Amino acid sequence: MRVRLLLILLLIISVESFHAQIGLPEDIKIGVKLPMKSEYLHEERSVWVSLPEGYEQSTKTTYPVIYVLDAENNFNYLSTVYQYLSKEPFGVLPQAILVAIANTDRTRDLTPTNTSKEMSFSGKKQVMFAGSGGNATFMKFIKDELFPAIEKKYRSNGYKVLVGHSFGGLAAINNLLSEPLFNAYIANDPSLWWDKELLIKKTETSKDDFKNIKFYLAQANNAEARNVKDDEHEIAIGKFKNLLEQQKLKNLQWKYGFYQSDDHGTVPLPGNNDGLRYIFRSYKWNFRDAMKNTALINQHYQEFSKDMNHTFKPTELFFKKIIDIAKERSSAESVKELEQLKKEYYP
Amino acid sequence: MRVRLLLILLLIISVESFHAQIGLPEDIKIGVKLPMKSEYLHEERSVWVSLPEGYEQSTKTTYPVIYVLDAENNFNYLSTVYQYLSKEPFGVLPQAILVAIANTDRTRDLTPTNTSKEMSFSGKKQVMFAGSGGNATFMKFIKDELFPAIEKKYRSNGYKVLVGHSFGGLAAINNLLSEPLFNAYIANDPSLWWDKELLIKKTETSKDDFKNIKFYLAQANNAEARNVKDDEHEIAIGKFKNLLEQQKLKNLQWKYGFYQSDDHGTVPLPGNNDGLRYIFRSYKWNFRDAMKNTALINQHYQEFSKDMNHTFKPTELFFKKIIDIAKERSSAESVKELEQLKKEYYP
Repeated sequence: MRVRLLLILLLIISVESFHAQIGLPEDIKIGVKLPMKSEYLHEERSVWVSLPEGYEQSTKTTYPVIYVLDAENNFNYLSTVYQYLSKEPFGVLPQAILVAIANTDRTRDLTPTNTSKEMSFSGKKQVMFAGSGGNATFMKFIKDELFPAIEKKYRSNGYKVLVGHSFGGLAAINNLLSEPLFNAYIANDPSLWWDKELLIKKTETSKDDFKNIKFYLAQANNAEARNVKDDEHEIAIGKFKNLLEQQKLKNLQWKYGFYQSDDHGTVPLPGNNDGLRYIFRSYKWNFRDAMKNTALINQHYQEFSKDMNHTFKPTELFFKKIIDIAKERSSAESVKELEQLKKEYYP
Repeated sequence: MRVRLLLILLLIISVESFHAQIGLPEDIKIGVKLPMKSEYLHEERSVWVSLPEGYEQSTKTTYPVIYVLDAENNFNYLSTVYQYLSKEPFGVLPQAILVAIANTDRTRDLTPTNTSKEMSFSGKKQVMFAGSGGNATFMKFIKDELFPAIEKKYRSNGYKVLVGHSFGGLAAINNLLSEPLFNAYIANDPSLWWDKELLIKKTETSKDDFKNIKFYLAQANNAEARNVKDDEHEIAIGKFKNLLEQQKLKNLQWKYGFYQSDDHGTVPLPGNNDGLRYIFRSYKWNFRDAMKNTALINQHYQEFSKDMNHTFKPTELFFKKIIDIAKERSSAESVKELEQLKKEYYP
């Protein structure tokens, strides 16, 4: 009996050895979920956070915070794409903290008014959106509970972006029109048809000044998937775009993108990519020039800060990486100048 | 002393209570790193794996495998973007397993020949790429060690894609021209200048038939970042594109994309997105039509399989999701038909 067992074991081992030996797996992690009790919402929320490379090693660098709605759908790809596009020192976007809010009652939180809608599926009628209209309370949670918690726990530089899709895009535009809590917004294929185009009417009569606020509107090509050309969703976005073109939102800096190959489901991918690049458009530069002339670093960050109407500084990781490159290239003078400049920013 | 301590504690608690209470963080995981001993390479490699949603819950569904070079740069964003774009039942890409290979000696593994290059930095000359030329051995590792290990450990359907960038794009094209191990390839801004345009020459004289192989070539706009218009990198890609247009690679199905807003560093993002959509272009369909007529499911997968020259079947998760939708819409007849069809695919 024992001999037979030994033989079987030997057989298993010998079969295994024909293949590459695979060891114990190690998890690949991209962020954390933080449970957070909200008094306004009377419930526990889950907030998903991604920190930039070098966050733990630096002590004084502060970062913009990108707030993202619908964490379940958007956190994984957006946080990893963001990290990819903000890699020091090559990045086309500044390093940032991503904070995404997971849903409990999505319709309640993201819609501005209580209104229901009768929809027909296979001839059967169903009432939709009965519990809608809680967006004001949800934004109070963001302003008075989430912002202070994030600002306390992480090193934010105070610049805030809000990213939303569909109802999330509706919520973003609702905040822009009511009490802008963010410096910049991205609305992907927003549900502007909501409540007989409530937000279109609000836009038409807006008297506010949106100076220094940046806004990106992404629209999907839904005609193919939905077999409709002019449904209320497309009509409402078209009206809003017209109002932007007529500068109804005074001094707003905005851009619009239409995505021929993307439908309502996939449009956030190119929309967020283009939207973030639009918002941070003055960030991209040729950092290689700074290797020859370190004064360009100050100049670049002054220009970038001016365009953002907010102070941005090069990160400690930027200095570390650029000094490493200068060392590899044995540019002793550059190394000295860069280390001197680093001390000025981070004494 | 004790009283003072108690007072301090109470003060801390009362200050804390002004903020939302944050609980214990939970990690967000997107995959695993598998250590793997390679006999060919005489070293341990790390292979990063992402499994599709529903993989653990299903027992028989098989998936294509997307092999990705440079795991460190590409795994996080590509695996999460892929999951986003392949979400059942809406996805525009079929669910897939992603397998990315981390580097140990990148130049050695990804270059086809041993050749060094003298480069000049700040007037100082450095010899680059001294240890190059190990791509044949690396591909042997992929073919005879990695493939069997992955096929044994995971439910693959046998369809394989290779994704590479820069030297990784060079390695992908080298494999295509030598001994194609994959059904489809994506080469992002490949380093075709390598060894006096070695692979251009190989393409010019190729007599092989590339029937049923799909290939996507993405080219970055490097002129701005590098302050050069016609460097050897751009020239070589241009020549290769011309050869594709002249159909030097017989029967190859190929597409080319130029990315105006992306440089060498960021081009893999849109390149992989467009490349994967090109490879799986016949997968996208309007699944909603199948709710009314389940025969369309068979028809769609037959057409998709024909275009791929490989058998693809709807996943168990697809049936689960579409049956759930039919139940929500109280379409009893649809539910019955879909459950019958599911049994045919997964008895």
